[in-house]
Amino acid sequence: MNEISKPASFPRPVNRSDIPFPNWSYKHIFRHGQCDPAGIVYTPEFFNVFNHAIEAWFCDCLNLSYYDFLGPRRIGLGYVNAHADFFSPVKMGQEVEYFIRVSKIGSKSYALELNAMLGDTEALRGLFTTVTTNLDKHSSIEIPADLRDALNRFVFSDNA
Amino acid sequence: MNEISKPASFPRPVNRSDIPFPNWSYKHIFRHGQCDPAGIVYTPEFFNVFNHAIEAWFCDCLNLSYYDFLGPRRIGLGYVNAHADFFSPVKMGQEVEYFIRVSKIGSKSYALELNAMLGDTEALRGLFTTVTTNLDKHSSIEIPADLRDALNRFVFSDNA
Amino acid sequence: MNEISKPASFPRPVNRSDIPFPNWSYKHIFRHGQCDPAGIVYTPEFFNVFNHAIEAWFCDCLNLSYYDFLGPRRIGLGYVNAHADFFSPVKMGQEVEYFIRVSKIGSKSYALELNAMLGDTEALRGLFTTVTTNLDKHSSIEIPADLRDALNRFVFSDNA
Amino acid sequence: MNEISKPASFPRPVNRSDIPFPNWSYKHIFRHGQCDPAGIVYTPEFFNVFNHAIEAWFCDCLNLSYYDFLGPRRIGLGYVNAHADFFSPVKMGQEVEYFIRVSKIGSKSYALELNAMLGDTEALRGLFTTVTTNLDKHSSIEIPADLRDALNRFVFSDNA
Repeated sequence: MNEISKPASFPRPVNRSDIPFPNWSYKHIFRHGQCDPAGIVYTPEFFNVFNHAIEAWFCDCLNLSYYDFLGPRRIGLGYVNAHADFFSPVKMGQEVEYFIRVSKIGSKSYALELNAMLGDTEALRGLFTTVTTNLDKHSSIEIPADLRDALNRFVFSDNA
Repeated sequence: MNEISKPASFPRPVNRSDIPFPNWSYKHIFRHGQCDPAGIVYTPEFFNVFNHAIEAWFCDCLNLSYYDFLGPRRIGLGYVNAHADFFSPVKMGQEVEYFIRVSKIGSKSYALELNAMLGDTEALRGLFTTVTTNLDKHSSIEIPADLRDALNRFVFSDNA
Repeated sequence: MNEISKPASFPRPVNRSDIPFPNWSYKHIFRHGQCDPAGIVYTPEFFNVFNHAIEAWFCDCLNLSYYDFLGPRRIGLGYVNAHADFFSPVKMGQEVEYFIRVSKIGSKSYALELNAMLGDTEALRGLFTTVTTNLDKHSSIEIPADLRDALNRFVFSDNA
Repeated sequence: MNEISKPASFPRPVNRSDIPFPNWSYKHIFRHGQCDPAGIVYTPEFFNVFNHAIEAWFCDCLNLSYYDFLGPRRIGLGYVNAHADFFSPVKMGQEVEYFIRVSKIGSKSYALELNAMLGDTEALRGLFTTVTTNLDKHSSIEIPADLRDALNRFVFSDNA
């Protein structure tokens, strides 16, 4: 999978009823220091919390420790691209709920879609393509079998 | 401009000689705390520094204070989408040099491309689509004339 | 209260049984991006999470919205000093539990102590002195009555 | 040096003319995303920039790579305590200039004082006590000779 994970040309916010895996979510209250002088969340903080959600999802849903990959297993889970679409601003003190699906799996990479809901409506969406790498050699590697098996349980494609 | 600013399907890193506006750059040394336990820059920090580069470019190249827009002028410069392609990892202590071009201007929005160079080769690229808004009414507004005039001086499209 | 909130000269980590208000805590798992290339939490991230804990404590224990103070009420809760003592390193993926007490109340300022526990032992401690201010005039003001009443319920001094 | 690096009880902002080592400074413009909804710098960002200043000072003044210590040399430079006194708020877009002195050297630890100036007046001050450690054994070690020699050139104590 060398091509970029392209978002649809005219992304529209999804509703809660459209979420394919509704049984787990990562909840985050955006704090004072994550907001800017306009009183809304500073964009890079959204990428920070997307990452927190992915880490929690690894532990809770994939039953795999994100930290074991990067630590003892020396397997990198870095991104070849990261994308976000912003539908509505998020203000200081608001709670956002993150749902995650696997939108694509290749041999050495996979793509995640994160739907960040404010109530019943998507406030923003994250799209991340990860390439699995050997952290010592800095070269791409096949997705490890345990990770592939786990990811396969959360695949959902709108194009399927 | 309602459509998404789509990156080319197979982005390839540019070389320094391909930079359309080479006379100004924003230099940043990635620090200890911006790097993760793998020793490379944590992805959200790249978005943070992209934003720093845009703010400096407003002041230095557009001759407009980013802070006046958000403060006294009450004009929002938020993103409808943000995207990054990562070509090579950046390590603790390395200096990255950012070059900025305007890749598109609509009536109420514009898109910026940021080429982040490690030496002569692009390490990562940022693509940001901004919609200008009225911060009190939270509605989109025409790009103010002074901003439009300034942006027009830095337009460069690969498709032109 | 003009004097600085001084930590004891030889701070020692407390045990869980020493916590004066054990019924509420703020739990935080330190994530990948909060850790540095040495694999341990980057110091400024500790200050970030201390602040998150204080905000949650306002809402949960004081029953006062931190965000209403800074927003509609235009009351600043900024620090005149911030201090942390570090007893043991915290690693990626570890969960830290924060307990909060009010260590001092003056007329226009108050001091908080945050005990951050890794299991039954304190890993680090935060000490913050806040001065209440009028955000429009940038001048100090008396602690508002509702905040004073709430803070008084959580006062605990080792020197009492 | 087991005792805490205590700030004076009534710290007062210094003037530019009081700076003991005025020939080098680290300049930083506080950006949009480093400020909070009150329009002033979010406290943990001050600790972040203190750290950036220390890293730059290692490279520029001590002529030692901060990154070599943490990387190939496996020597930790973590803090046993970190403290800041805030004299005046810093707003979005303002430039702060950092000056650094060594306020104390022990056998396995040293303390730094950072005077952060807004124009000619100190806006805030940072006090950091570092213990040098073996990153593999997580035990304290004697300050390496090259670091000690370099630090000795920047010692200044108000109590001297």
